[in-house]
Amino acid sequence: MKLLSITAVLSLLLLSMSATAQVNKKTGQEKANFIFPKGQQGPAENFTGRVWNIGLVENDSVYNTVVGNVYFEPGARSNWHKHPSGQILIITDGIGYHQIKGQPKQTLNKGDIVKCPPHVEHWHGASADTGMLQLYIMPKTENGIVTWLNKVTDEEYFDNK
Amino acid sequence: MKLLSITAVLSLLLLSMSATAQVNKKTGQEKANFIFPKGQQGPAENFTGRVWNIGLVENDSVYNTVVGNVYFEPGARSNWHKHPSGQILIITDGIGYHQIKGQPKQTLNKGDIVKCPPHVEHWHGASADTGMLQLYIMPKTENGIVTWLNKVTDEEYFDNK
Repeated sequence: MKLLSITAVLSLLLLSMSATAQVNKKTGQEKANFIFPKGQQGPAENFTGRVWNIGLVENDSVYNTVVGNVYFEPGARSNWHKHPSGQILIITDGIGYHQIKGQPKQTLNKGDIVKCPPHVEHWHGASADTGMLQLYIMPKTENGIVTWLNKVTDEEYFDNK
Repeated sequence: MKLLSITAVLSLLLLSMSATAQVNKKTGQEKANFIFPKGQQGPAENFTGRVWNIGLVENDSVYNTVVGNVYFEPGARSNWHKHPSGQILIITDGIGYHQIKGQPKQTLNKGDIVKCPPHVEHWHGASADTGMLQLYIMPKTENGIVTWLNKVTDEEYFDNK
């Protein structure tokens, strides 16, 4: 009976400890500290791997600001793309990358803020082993929102220069 | 020895479960699921109770967007105030309130999004028993950022109409 209780308590403990964007090495399951529903899977033409998007603030003429939440599963990433008024990223959990064209890949952690200036090509995504949860903000949407470009190749994704 | 292990495991479990914006009734301590450092305490002339603010994106002429994170301790709230281009709130943990002048107080929970239109008076804050963590976004800062107004009285704060 005592062993059963210990096992039950330990299981609960492990469950509650796994509430971060980490892969459970035994089950392969991804556990992230979600604030919002995962939303819809991003289309394969704009993303590599499994990427989940939920819109939080839709475009309108009052705020001219689009806000949403993306969850990149391990290894998943966006295509190269650019925004006419730039983009602000807020990392809320996990580990990932951001790269601006011509610059080295930058590692992102929970609490990091990234800005990508207007008309500058970039991509973002999860690290190979750990997923990433991020909010995105696109300001000044009267200028447009996003232009999708080429896939981020494995060579680019794994490049450590 | 066995009892000790169970106690240790239970303590760990309770610790890990308390990682939300809840008050520990025994110690009075507030535990919130923080993404960012708490930052600086908000000035008493603009806030009632203990409110912590950290700027995440400063105003500039590229994005014209200000982003920050606020942690309201239980019972704490902003003064009435307004923004020339409105404000977007993203609740990341805890329980709180938002009220637009002339409308009923709205209860906020983790994952809620609130918009307050330009030039409209509002206040936001924590519930009496549980703190609230929120991100704020001010767009179109070329029009200005905030005008602070009167304190939210206890009568207004506890009004349930």
